[in-house]
Amino acid sequence: MTDTVQKTSRRSLLQAGLAGVGALAAAPAVAADGPDYITAAMKTPGKPFSAYGMPASYESGVKRLVGPPGVSPGTGSSRTPLEMLEGIITPSGLHYERHHNGVPDIDPAAHRFVIHGLVKKPLEFTMDELLRYPRISAMHFMECGGNSGANSGPNPAPLTAGGIHGLLSCSEWTGIRLSTLLDEAGVAPQGEHKGKWLLVESGDAANLSRSVPLEAAHEQALLVMFQNGERLRPEQGYPLRFIMPGWEGNLNIKWLHRIQVTPGPTNTKDETSKYSMLQADGKARQFNLVLPVKSTITRPSGNMTMSGAGYYEVSGLAWSGHGKISKVEVSLDGGKTYVAADLPGPVLPQCLTKFRLNWDWDGAPTTIMSRATDEKGNVQPTHAVWMAQFAPGQNYQNNGIQCWAIGADNTVKNAYA
Amino acid sequence: MTDTVQKTSRRSLLQAGLAGVGALAAAPAVAADGPDYITAAMKTPGKPFSAYGMPASYESGVKRLVGPPGVSPGTGSSRTPLEMLEGIITPSGLHYERHHNGVPDIDPAAHRFVIHGLVKKPLEFTMDELLRYPRISAMHFMECGGNSGANSGPNPAPLTAGGIHGLLSCSEWTGIRLSTLLDEAGVAPQGEHKGKWLLVESGDAANLSRSVPLEAAHEQALLVMFQNGERLRPEQGYPLRFIMPGWEGNLNIKWLHRIQVTPGPTNTKDETSKYSMLQADGKARQFNLVLPVKSTITRPSGNMTMSGAGYYEVSGLAWSGHGKISKVEVSLDGGKTYVAADLPGPVLPQCLTKFRLNWDWDGAPTTIMSRATDEKGNVQPTHAVWMAQFAPGQNYQNNGIQCWAIGADNTVKNAYA
Repeated sequence: MTDTVQKTSRRSLLQAGLAGVGALAAAPAVAADGPDYITAAMKTPGKPFSAYGMPASYESGVKRLVGPPGVSPGTGSSRTPLEMLEGIITPSGLHYERHHNGVPDIDPAAHRFVIHGLVKKPLEFTMDELLRYPRISAMHFMECGGNSGANSGPNPAPLTAGGIHGLLSCSEWTGIRLSTLLDEAGVAPQGEHKGKWLLVESGDAANLSRSVPLEAAHEQALLVMFQNGERLRPEQGYPLRFIMPGWEGNLNIKWLHRIQVTPGPTNTKDETSKYSMLQADGKARQFNLVLPVKSTITRPSGNMTMSGAGYYEVSGLAWSGHGKISKVEVSLDGGKTYVAADLPGPVLPQCLTKFRLNWDWDGAPTTIMSRATDEKGNVQPTHAVWMAQFAPGQNYQNNGIQCWAIGADNTVKNAYA
Repeated sequence: MTDTVQKTSRRSLLQAGLAGVGALAAAPAVAADGPDYITAAMKTPGKPFSAYGMPASYESGVKRLVGPPGVSPGTGSSRTPLEMLEGIITPSGLHYERHHNGVPDIDPAAHRFVIHGLVKKPLEFTMDELLRYPRISAMHFMECGGNSGANSGPNPAPLTAGGIHGLLSCSEWTGIRLSTLLDEAGVAPQGEHKGKWLLVESGDAANLSRSVPLEAAHEQALLVMFQNGERLRPEQGYPLRFIMPGWEGNLNIKWLHRIQVTPGPTNTKDETSKYSMLQADGKARQFNLVLPVKSTITRPSGNMTMSGAGYYEVSGLAWSGHGKISKVEVSLDGGKTYVAADLPGPVLPQCLTKFRLNWDWDGAPTTIMSRATDEKGNVQPTHAVWMAQFAPGQNYQNNGIQCWAIGADNTVKNAYA
């Protein structure tokens, strides 16, 4: 991957709708009868077939950004290098990681999943039993509640798009509806029982657990076993993950071990000491469940180098926990004016949505930014408006508009306005 | 992965719309206060973060089916194990391979792509230059013209769904429109020039080349650089691939080296000695470009074992080179009657489409099959109707209806009726 954004000098590429406008590049003269060289690859038999393919060796720089270790080697996160990728599907090998005690090794043949608590009938399932149920497939983003926290500091951190927003990935997930199993256990929301919430717990050494309202989980929750076609990756919860599409990553419990039906929220360590949001008035917001509408330009983005005035495609990603993205507006003049970007689709609910816009940069310093709107009418706030809600240091669910300052020296830098 | 299709004995799962119907599995009694065990994974710190993730070790059996070597180690194919996967995205590591001289090692910094021939201005591009253009992302299937050829033999081969139909995969591709470059070279179809076809050639040691009509290529062709988010895999043409969505896999030239604009088709070795279809009347159909409408049930499918009477989800894949899938019908009684399967979506043009149907098997021997219809009204023919068109041994583009015979002994076998 190059981290240089290439230019073209052809204004007319924009004006003529990208058709019939002459070479973007200063292409060297080529004979009409074709190239006069034979490459090494054309003279050398290639490598044989393989059972499981890997990226080209030339792409070894495209990797997760593994953060500094936390209190133990398995505590912390690794980020998806968003600015090196394209489209909406994140390759599973580059899906972000957020672990509290590393990645466990779980034999699916020995794994059990239990539903218990305020149920008519406690249930225990093997993986083979879960694989008998009717399945559902859907593409959904996954985002850590702490994503973009770097932008909650007093000054803009000199990071890449992935470095700031890379606790964000998107996969096609396949699993079964939790509602089917809840109904079996006799806790449909409309039934006569005292269950109102769920305690959802992981089977790793962190025993991460979160409280989720029963009614919403009955409507939306999936028990996922497949990711991008194949079985879940170990880092994403193999063999079983609880997923609430569009809800805070942390409560999408990996290595799912048990769900306990409870009368109310359990207030576990993972939803009190962490993942609560301290407001400017000193009160904390707890249970910040649905992720807000958000977007970022990924190209051009932080720490890339422009190639001077000329044509650029401005592109990026938008997403919302509340549903589909309805609009992404891009400002190329520091927020003074916005224009609608293209959303070529697919535009799916709780899924990354790609936006693209043609831009003829005049070479003068400017700041570019994107502002997403979702189908419920939610709009991204500015960085300043977002920050004003919270106490200093509160860094969960920052969805303030991402600005990238482009200099006359061709630098692209994270900026707050 | 298990290759056993699990059952449930609950008829009512179907009748009650999968809601509130009691345990599919004979779940053992569980205490209301939850499981009384602590697993090894809950006591052992997990593995640390990784730069590029891989599947779980327990999934090592999920791999491409590498066929016997051809005339050299790099000649032949490997197939996607369709029946082990879910959803519509094929993980890039399991995308099928069809090579004529192995997988070349191409340094993208040294790679060049040339457009020449009947053009106003021959052009040569580096990869960095190509990366300057506006991009397009789309999910499309890729299918070899020889896929499902096993079903053209005199007797049904005792193979799995992937073994028969696994020269089929689906990815999110990102690249640029070929039309932009054709316009630069001065060969828009409506222009004054003698170009009517393209010769598209690979830069590997097979120098595979195919002829494609200029007008269709100008409208539809992509020059692809990304697959499922990351750069193209070597086996899929890294660093550059020509893609005509829904057209025969063979002409989606990998390791794209040059495109020559020509007055007519070139009749290369790869479109005369191969990939032409010998009819029953002794004449061959050449340039079989757009792939026909097709489908297969992947679960239950060949060489799986049923678990006796009870609930099963019947699911599979449908696709067409002509556009979107509009309908998939499933027969559970040997073709006597068909019912419409669910198409939960997304349903995208020239893309794999997942279908699902609930089934309460009574345990009696039967044959199941799926019949797809596309938005242009094309319908899959029966195996017999398809076979009657061609000379014995003609095995390209077999889209006859796939039948799976289910025995009272719980076996599932490939069948012709």
